[in-house]
Amino acid sequence: MPLSPETRDKLKRVSTATLATALYKRGFRTQFIQDVKPLHPLTESMVGEAYTLRYMPAREDLNQLTVFRDPSHPQRKAVEECPPGAVLVMDSRKDPRAASAGGILVTRLMMRGVAGVVTDGGFRDAAEIATLSMPAFHSRPSAPTNLTLHQAIDINVPIGCGDAPVFPGDVVVGDNDGVIIIPAHLADEIAAEATEMTAYEDFVTERVRSGHTIRGLYPATDGANLKEFAAWRAKNGR
Amino acid sequence: MPLSPETRDKLKRVSTATLATALYKRGFRTQFIQDVKPLHPLTESMVGEAYTLRYMPAREDLNQLTVFRDPSHPQRKAVEECPPGAVLVMDSRKDPRAASAGGILVTRLMMRGVAGVVTDGGFRDAAEIATLSMPAFHSRPSAPTNLTLHQAIDINVPIGCGDAPVFPGDVVVGDNDGVIIIPAHLADEIAAEATEMTAYEDFVTERVRSGHTIRGLYPATDGANLKEFAAWRAKNGR
Amino acid sequence: MPLSPETRDKLKRVSTATLATALYKRGFRTQFIQDVKPLHPLTESMVGEAYTLRYMPAREDLNQLTVFRDPSHPQRKAVEECPPGAVLVMDSRKDPRAASAGGILVTRLMMRGVAGVVTDGGFRDAAEIATLSMPAFHSRPSAPTNLTLHQAIDINVPIGCGDAPVFPGDVVVGDNDGVIIIPAHLADEIAAEATEMTAYEDFVTERVRSGHTIRGLYPATDGANLKEFAAWRAKNGR
Amino acid sequence: MPLSPETRDKLKRVSTATLATALYKRGFRTQFIQDVKPLHPLTESMVGEAYTLRYMPAREDLNQLTVFRDPSHPQRKAVEECPPGAVLVMDSRKDPRAASAGGILVTRLMMRGVAGVVTDGGFRDAAEIATLSMPAFHSRPSAPTNLTLHQAIDINVPIGCGDAPVFPGDVVVGDNDGVIIIPAHLADEIAAEATEMTAYEDFVTERVRSGHTIRGLYPATDGANLKEFAAWRAKNGR
Amino acid sequence: MPLSPETRDKLKRVSTATLATALYKRGFRTQFIQDVKPLHPLTESMVGEAYTLRYMPAREDLNQLTVFRDPSHPQRKAVEECPPGAVLVMDSRKDPRAASAGGILVTRLMMRGVAGVVTDGGFRDAAEIATLSMPAFHSRPSAPTNLTLHQAIDINVPIGCGDAPVFPGDVVVGDNDGVIIIPAHLADEIAAEATEMTAYEDFVTERVRSGHTIRGLYPATDGANLKEFAAWRAKNGR
Amino acid sequence: MPLSPETRDKLKRVSTATLATALYKRGFRTQFIQDVKPLHPLTESMVGEAYTLRYMPAREDLNQLTVFRDPSHPQRKAVEECPPGAVLVMDSRKDPRAASAGGILVTRLMMRGVAGVVTDGGFRDAAEIATLSMPAFHSRPSAPTNLTLHQAIDINVPIGCGDAPVFPGDVVVGDNDGVIIIPAHLADEIAAEATEMTAYEDFVTERVRSGHTIRGLYPATDGANLKEFAAWRAKNGR
Repeated sequence: MPLSPETRDKLKRVSTATLATALYKRGFRTQFIQDVKPLHPLTESMVGEAYTLRYMPAREDLNQLTVFRDPSHPQRKAVEECPPGAVLVMDSRKDPRAASAGGILVTRLMMRGVAGVVTDGGFRDAAEIATLSMPAFHSRPSAPTNLTLHQAIDINVPIGCGDAPVFPGDVVVGDNDGVIIIPAHLADEIAAEATEMTAYEDFVTERVRSGHTIRGLYPATDGANLKEFAAWRAKNGR
Repeated sequence: MPLSPETRDKLKRVSTATLATALYKRGFRTQFIQDVKPLHPLTESMVGEAYTLRYMPAREDLNQLTVFRDPSHPQRKAVEECPPGAVLVMDSRKDPRAASAGGILVTRLMMRGVAGVVTDGGFRDAAEIATLSMPAFHSRPSAPTNLTLHQAIDINVPIGCGDAPVFPGDVVVGDNDGVIIIPAHLADEIAAEATEMTAYEDFVTERVRSGHTIRGLYPATDGANLKEFAAWRAKNGR
Repeated sequence: MPLSPETRDKLKRVSTATLATALYKRGFRTQFIQDVKPLHPLTESMVGEAYTLRYMPAREDLNQLTVFRDPSHPQRKAVEECPPGAVLVMDSRKDPRAASAGGILVTRLMMRGVAGVVTDGGFRDAAEIATLSMPAFHSRPSAPTNLTLHQAIDINVPIGCGDAPVFPGDVVVGDNDGVIIIPAHLADEIAAEATEMTAYEDFVTERVRSGHTIRGLYPATDGANLKEFAAWRAKNGR
Repeated sequence: MPLSPETRDKLKRVSTATLATALYKRGFRTQFIQDVKPLHPLTESMVGEAYTLRYMPAREDLNQLTVFRDPSHPQRKAVEECPPGAVLVMDSRKDPRAASAGGILVTRLMMRGVAGVVTDGGFRDAAEIATLSMPAFHSRPSAPTNLTLHQAIDINVPIGCGDAPVFPGDVVVGDNDGVIIIPAHLADEIAAEATEMTAYEDFVTERVRSGHTIRGLYPATDGANLKEFAAWRAKNGR
Repeated sequence: MPLSPETRDKLKRVSTATLATALYKRGFRTQFIQDVKPLHPLTESMVGEAYTLRYMPAREDLNQLTVFRDPSHPQRKAVEECPPGAVLVMDSRKDPRAASAGGILVTRLMMRGVAGVVTDGGFRDAAEIATLSMPAFHSRPSAPTNLTLHQAIDINVPIGCGDAPVFPGDVVVGDNDGVIIIPAHLADEIAAEATEMTAYEDFVTERVRSGHTIRGLYPATDGANLKEFAAWRAKNGR
Repeated sequence: MPLSPETRDKLKRVSTATLATALYKRGFRTQFIQDVKPLHPLTESMVGEAYTLRYMPAREDLNQLTVFRDPSHPQRKAVEECPPGAVLVMDSRKDPRAASAGGILVTRLMMRGVAGVVTDGGFRDAAEIATLSMPAFHSRPSAPTNLTLHQAIDINVPIGCGDAPVFPGDVVVGDNDGVIIIPAHLADEIAAEATEMTAYEDFVTERVRSGHTIRGLYPATDGANLKEFAAWRAKNGR
């Protein structure tokens, strides 16, 4: 069930807050990745299918600098093999005391057409990464090499990231609030519903900015507001 | 004992750091709300009387999305009833894993003339809130709806916020360092003293920037500095 | 073993990430100060020898505001005696609930030619400090006076800062990722090696930005890349 | 809807683990009070309706030792008015750095016939409380008087305790795993179901102790096990 | 490289503290599982090869109670397939807010001859598990079913447990201080060395208990102590 | 101002809870060492003057096992030089991930007549230490050698321990609730007052156990209770 271009487009224009509510309606409470933020502000949402990298605690004898000479080292392999359009999501066990990756690897991901990168740890060279066009999310900057604490061990297995469950192929959406994971089978339905919700929220925002009370409007318990909304949609082509 | 316009004006021009010291002199050590920050930098301090909202942990059966249809839902009621000029302070039990409020509600508070909003949790739509002129303070952005973890339960009762005690009517002051709570009965006295302190601190800063040692100057153990200060005040009309 | 101007210059042009790797190669895993960030973005790295201030938990009777009238109070003494070119590093026991210092003291440090200031607690007047040219690093802004929780007790003794060991005279380097401590006796050697590493990383970054894979390039397991690097160095004068 | 003697009796003989599963089936995931333990091991479960005490952060001027001279001080009032058979549940904001109560007050609760006491903070005189027959649950011992950090502010309002929602009248059950809160309207139904579940679990435990696999037995996907269970019930009168 | 009976026997008689020092000599600093304790005091050390279970954060739709009806559910499968003599080590992401397992499953492990069970989360039915002869280690008791927060996802892959790296087949040793992981290829060598160290430590303890200084004795910088030790070994047959 | 035998005797018979209240009356709120517990239950309070050991984060090159061969290593020196009757208090920066000391060193302290030992980290060989008659307090057991994370750096300087300020010579009192620090100059006065308070508390406890309300009794706002207390003192010789 690959992510359709239509759904990808819709998701680029909705917020993680709206998606969180749509997921909440369906009983999902833990899909938001806790405590990560974008390294630069986003103007449209990051969207892509999850491609995962799992770190475990590093054992000293297995994590000398020479391990990077092996082209099959999972971190390096993930960087070269994460599909274009996907988002690389790293399970760093919520530990930003050592880096999950740095400027060179993140640049390589960007050049390869990857849609974004997320870790519940931290990136080194954070200021450099912040200048890249590809979105990156982390907990905080962290200079030490990943080998100090993290051993890359698995590629594209189900992981946890910031206490959210992430399965390969789930749809990852990130904006300035953070990152949320949409179960793959719900992506189309959630994208459609969130698009509708966004239209109404934009209408509400416009009304509130012009002085309207939220009573009866948000949510729309007063039918008059629904009528106004219909007119607004027609007028604004939404 | 409503907040007088004079005291409000004075407080807009003093820092939370100076207020913290004035409170410390009177034995208050815990009035600073820990770990909140403004969503956009402030150029003058946020000032207003505290109007409070208390959240408790959400019980699933009482927190379906439909609860917002009830106009007496405490969160929605607080947003519509917080007095103009007041600051809405939310006790989110220091838990930013779900939102305390979002862009529409905060916009509504701004439109109603509220002076600011503070939570020891997080706001959703944080980037949008950051564009509003009304100050907002939180711990970090958080997309999930408040229903996920927080149940609004009480309006305008004494609460804790970021480990600080907040009583309705206390005077809330916020700047780029964070937010501090002045017990209502001390507001005039603290505002007056902090205004005096600020004059001296501005004098000291000017002197230090021109190369003066802090010895004898900060604090003013050398009487010569007090004389210079008197001259400075005269000259600067302070 | 004072820090030579040559080594200081080299260190200004390398990142804490590169230094962390050079230290890691020599078995150092804990030299990065955890969870501090600069109050304003840096364009070159902060460099200086460590001059330390140790705080212990404040006992109420020993920390009235009057203590600052004593010119030998360790915090004030440190601010007047930290050598020009050094970095003042404060052990605030990772507790930002009260300030480690404020705008006036940090300004005085800058005026005295100090190279920077670091605390694993927080600064008050953070927005003001952020406008100074001298780098300052902390965990988060904090308005309460240091007396609330911190008692300055020792100057220039070995300390911990953000879980890193800091000995007086160690070389402190800070950039946008944070701050790292180079043991004094290794400063020259680490600076030289990091300078070489930086040249190669700049070459790699350039290559990756033009679409090159990291395989064989980072690290340089393919000899062809080393040849290209030699040409690049010649051409770029590095 | 007072707690019936039948339901109370049933609940004394089931575990919080079994109750947690029965609640989970109905969509309740957060009713377990996190991180509290009994001061002495229990041989039957503590059961009672919740009577609550809410603490907020202490403001210094309102929390001098003299406040206890006021018989309407909420902590003292709660101790004298919590109904016999109820459980006093305290919201100490998960902060055990100062006590929630001590030996004398807990003894008074016991003498008054209260069924138990729970705080998500700590008790002072913990060793003495551990000798009482009435169950008490806390996070860890804590000698400082509650006035140091906690101000008792409300009696019998909805609270949070260890991240669980607690409404007055909810049914509180505690055993050696900790404490769980049953929404009042579900107490009879949950007690009945948990009693049935306990019978089956006891049967399973007996079988497993005699070497039986859990496959087909736990849960009972193999019908033969249900037949054996029926026989076991008949034989054991359960 | 299966664990030899000789090495197993040696390891049963040495402490995790001694093993930690032997590992430290070889550069291993993170093999101790942080913050777990035995549910009952041990009189000899638990020893066995690691068999692992990995949990990820639970997604609500995949963790209904019915999942346990599937005999291939990884938690249930691990309980039935963990080899006799091995130790089941669970990666619960250091989260004891929901159980990792309960009394019935742990009893089944014991009946199957498993050597012990470790989680960096918590067990439900902890008081019952504490009565079993098989050692069990956790962080704290936790009544909620694992489905509440943990989804069992992988069996016998490399994991983290309490920040320690655990590879299937590593040798797990537990005592009253906690649990340590010996890399498989070092088990014989570490067991031999720790046995020697233990002999010397027992000699030292005896000497210290009779009033001897530790100077020159611990470590044995005074040759006379080594001579006494030789005599002690001869006399005590060690 | 050495600790007099009379004051030492009084302090052995009062609780840390009572001492905390006596200190609170004098404005001391942070003298209780947070989050430490005795390794075995105490029947009388541990009392002694503080002799301190300060740890800083360990730098790898300075913390090889060979450092213990140096008799002036601060940890070993402290163990041999802590005066009989004193309490060795260790500042382990609240980090129990590596040990502060182990069975042999603690036994040596006991043999030398030291009154007790306290760390805000953890002890290795905790089960063995628990069998010694000398009280020991820590946060939790920890097998790794102190060299892994802690470098002993200073003896008998002012330190923090569990967020409490500890000056050499302060009086340390420990019981089953934990450990509290009495400023040296207040020891006699606090001991005397706490002895009086304890008499009244014992009277109150007796009354409450016989069914008396706490109203008017605790505190004694009803004069009749003071009269009864006077009679009780006479009868019980207190």
